[in-house]
Amino acid sequence: MKKHNHAALLIIDMINDFNFTYGNTLAAKTLEIATNIYSLKQKCTKEKIPVIYINDHYNLWKADLEKILSFCQNDKNNEILQRIKPTDRDYFLIKPKHSAFYGTALHTLLQQLNVDTLLLAGIAGNICVLFTANDAYMREYSLIVPENCIASVDNEDNLYAIRMMKNVMDAKIFTYQENTIMSTLFPS
Amino acid sequence: MKKHNHAALLIIDMINDFNFTYGNTLAAKTLEIATNIYSLKQKCTKEKIPVIYINDHYNLWKADLEKILSFCQNDKNNEILQRIKPTDRDYFLIKPKHSAFYGTALHTLLQQLNVDTLLLAGIAGNICVLFTANDAYMREYSLIVPENCIASVDNEDNLYAIRMMKNVMDAKIFTYQENTIMSTLFPS
Amino acid sequence: MKKHNHAALLIIDMINDFNFTYGNTLAAKTLEIATNIYSLKQKCTKEKIPVIYINDHYNLWKADLEKILSFCQNDKNNEILQRIKPTDRDYFLIKPKHSAFYGTALHTLLQQLNVDTLLLAGIAGNICVLFTANDAYMREYSLIVPENCIASVDNEDNLYAIRMMKNVMDAKIFTYQENTIMSTLFPS
Amino acid sequence: MKKHNHAALLIIDMINDFNFTYGNTLAAKTLEIATNIYSLKQKCTKEKIPVIYINDHYNLWKADLEKILSFCQNDKNNEILQRIKPTDRDYFLIKPKHSAFYGTALHTLLQQLNVDTLLLAGIAGNICVLFTANDAYMREYSLIVPENCIASVDNEDNLYAIRMMKNVMDAKIFTYQENTIMSTLFPS
Repeated sequence: MKKHNHAALLIIDMINDFNFTYGNTLAAKTLEIATNIYSLKQKCTKEKIPVIYINDHYNLWKADLEKILSFCQNDKNNEILQRIKPTDRDYFLIKPKHSAFYGTALHTLLQQLNVDTLLLAGIAGNICVLFTANDAYMREYSLIVPENCIASVDNEDNLYAIRMMKNVMDAKIFTYQENTIMSTLFPS
Repeated sequence: MKKHNHAALLIIDMINDFNFTYGNTLAAKTLEIATNIYSLKQKCTKEKIPVIYINDHYNLWKADLEKILSFCQNDKNNEILQRIKPTDRDYFLIKPKHSAFYGTALHTLLQQLNVDTLLLAGIAGNICVLFTANDAYMREYSLIVPENCIASVDNEDNLYAIRMMKNVMDAKIFTYQENTIMSTLFPS
Repeated sequence: MKKHNHAALLIIDMINDFNFTYGNTLAAKTLEIATNIYSLKQKCTKEKIPVIYINDHYNLWKADLEKILSFCQNDKNNEILQRIKPTDRDYFLIKPKHSAFYGTALHTLLQQLNVDTLLLAGIAGNICVLFTANDAYMREYSLIVPENCIASVDNEDNLYAIRMMKNVMDAKIFTYQENTIMSTLFPS
Repeated sequence: MKKHNHAALLIIDMINDFNFTYGNTLAAKTLEIATNIYSLKQKCTKEKIPVIYINDHYNLWKADLEKILSFCQNDKNNEILQRIKPTDRDYFLIKPKHSAFYGTALHTLLQQLNVDTLLLAGIAGNICVLFTANDAYMREYSLIVPENCIASVDNEDNLYAIRMMKNVMDAKIFTYQENTIMSTLFPS
């Protein structure tokens, strides 16, 4: 019945202090995808696809972006944040748990933006991204996953999560490139 | 089974621009209750009862307290905000709709604070407070309502909402006074 | 953007044992609206508007329609059930609390049926119907309320709830009649 | 603060028609675990641990146990159902999607039973069991997973899901045996 799909780009947990086991490993991998996500974000902005950051709040609760940034900022994420820090144009929501839908206004925001398709980017691929994907799937969003915009501590886990999003949640998997034409990705 | 109740004070939509029909009427009534809520808040802080502001975000979404304040602040609410502005000690959450539980992390925050009893204060009594009360009741929180800390545009509506919280949601209704001993209010 | 509205009729708590204070009063009023609801239901079926019963499960949990009926059936509701008992064509869901959306698959069912508009009927108007209406409104459904298909113990409470659905939740209120043309009611 | 844990056994999607790709493979593996689940269920009943079946409803919606059984029953599941069919003592809920918490009254039922710990059994380990586990973890339930009461089409996927529940969701993994003493499994 619907003619056009309306997508949004979800950027998950990229503001991260990496203060956990294997945090350095994940920080290194996150730096690699940060460039891709930044480019994808630019393209989305150009094509009027809304960009939504959704992020752990580091138990600050009353937290806002500046407080989370000042809590998180350190040597490990300095370069990442330079590339991927939210601007005033981006939406910014906090989440208290793994999934971006649990205990957040994400679904309401997406409804108001008339969005039915989600581009998923961020970390960790096998935890917060995967469980966000499943919650999105249960709410009947279509999923598009740029595989080079997702990272996990372990590469096998990352591949496994991507395979799962493909097989279990009907996600369309693609490799993002600067010349990707976003509209070709959307389900018809 | 549980021996002690753990309460939290919920302050609903008190950061308000009153830019709606009858906004001036509600602003005047809100000023009256602001003094009571401020006193109640002081007492709660003294008795280690956590204070949680939950507030409309005026469609800012990425909003933080400062942005909401700067968006809202005007002649109508100047005095109210002087009395009741959140401090760094208070929790601050945004809500996208009437109920403080819909599309928010409130339930998760209350779980982490080990809270099973809610003190409800704020505006409007017959809309956001009432629907928050029902959502709290469905989640099996006990409710305590200081009737002089709640206001609605219309006094009849306010009384009706309070009666409804009492009769339908088993809320304990009381008139807050400076010498109120909080612990006597809690369900045994 | 959307051209056509898709409605569903929600019939709330009409399978009821009326074993509570003022149960006889509500049973008498429910009998009056049962005839209207039955007629409305026939019309909906004719116009391909899905009919969804959603009902308290009387703490049976594993409950199905037959078990709930056999638990509930008594002298007070005999005539009501004769008029309004669900058939095999109707959807039937149970709800654990006041609102038809809390702890139920209603939202998912409505998504699958492509429904964006709800006709609300049933009891009690000032409790389960009202709180269902608010939950529907927060989820951005349009509401249509046939005022003679809703009953509460107290007539004033019923009128108050209807006024609230109109003023706070933008519900369209109308008096159902056999010659009502449903499509004229839908928001354009 | 709490002294005792209260567990419930969750039996996921064991009433299954296996009419999907690799359905025969999963049916064979499910038959193996059905004996373990049956024994675990007997033990739970003896130790007053409530048993809750939660199951896909095969798009019946108004569905009850008997209707689901009569829809599903076939040569592939005959033996399984003989071992594991719910009795009148067991709770029985339907779920519309992967997770047992999404669009269901499970959380409310667990609250009323005063349950804070879940034993997870059923199929498929890497889909419905895994996503139920994550939803339970986000709601702060403790998880206990009897690894020989869970099956997936692919054994690697099953092991992966179990590892994930252990590492990401703090689940306690154990091999159920007839002489397992349940209370030794509960978190202290």
